[in-house]
Amino acid sequence: MKIEHIGIAVKNIEDSNQLFADLFDAPHYKMESVASEGVMTSFFQVGESKIELLQATNPDSPIAKFIEKKGEGIHHIAFEVKDIDAEIVRLTNKGFKMIHEMPKLGADNKRIAFLHPKSTNSVLVELCQEIV
Amino acid sequence: MKIEHIGIAVKNIEDSNQLFADLFDAPHYKMESVASEGVMTSFFQVGESKIELLQATNPDSPIAKFIEKKGEGIHHIAFEVKDIDAEIVRLTNKGFKMIHEMPKLGADNKRIAFLHPKSTNSVLVELCQEIV
Repeated sequence: MKIEHIGIAVKNIEDSNQLFADLFDAPHYKMESVASEGVMTSFFQVGESKIELLQATNPDSPIAKFIEKKGEGIHHIAFEVKDIDAEIVRLTNKGFKMIHEMPKLGADNKRIAFLHPKSTNSVLVELCQEIV
Repeated sequence: MKIEHIGIAVKNIEDSNQLFADLFDAPHYKMESVASEGVMTSFFQVGESKIELLQATNPDSPIAKFIEKKGEGIHHIAFEVKDIDAEIVRLTNKGFKMIHEMPKLGADNKRIAFLHPKSTNSVLVELCQEIV
């Protein structure tokens, strides 16, 4: 397992791309729109992990609602797993509550599933597995 | 640069140790008290990074105040840098505001310095360098 990425909710992704490029002393390497989630994303590589900036592209986006409620900041942590289907079964058996009991298609060519933050100390946890 | 760790504020570190051990399918590998910060910490290894749980040990601890204001959840991201003194100079010149303009001693045998979240999209960012 590794930290695949940390998702950060931002209001203006162009401004934040500049900010994080200054922070990391390296620019984002790609942007990607995820229409189903109503978000524009950008990615920075930091060691084996990525930082994913997320800007809402419509007012119903989960990111719009998050910013309205909590302001900008860290939104979720994604852990890469080898077998997401098996991991969902293992975690459900351990008593974790899944938001997605079946993996769905996410950004960056991944199958993803979120755990409910009520079962993880209010940390929004994403599991992801690269589609090969 | 890499993500050295993600700090998560928790109310009860024993309960959370069990929770994250179940999540990662592996137990924490150490606990450490940081008296100057008023926190008990525990560490999990995830790939090249760590998850650091933080429980306040007194009501004046920054973690006690964070939980009072925002509840449990992700508290900060720490990036490992090769030369923390040079990095503080570089970031200050870029316009970032440091909470610590001089590194101080942190947990896990590190020199650390925090950036002010107002200059980093409300993300509390820690820089750290291992003491060798």
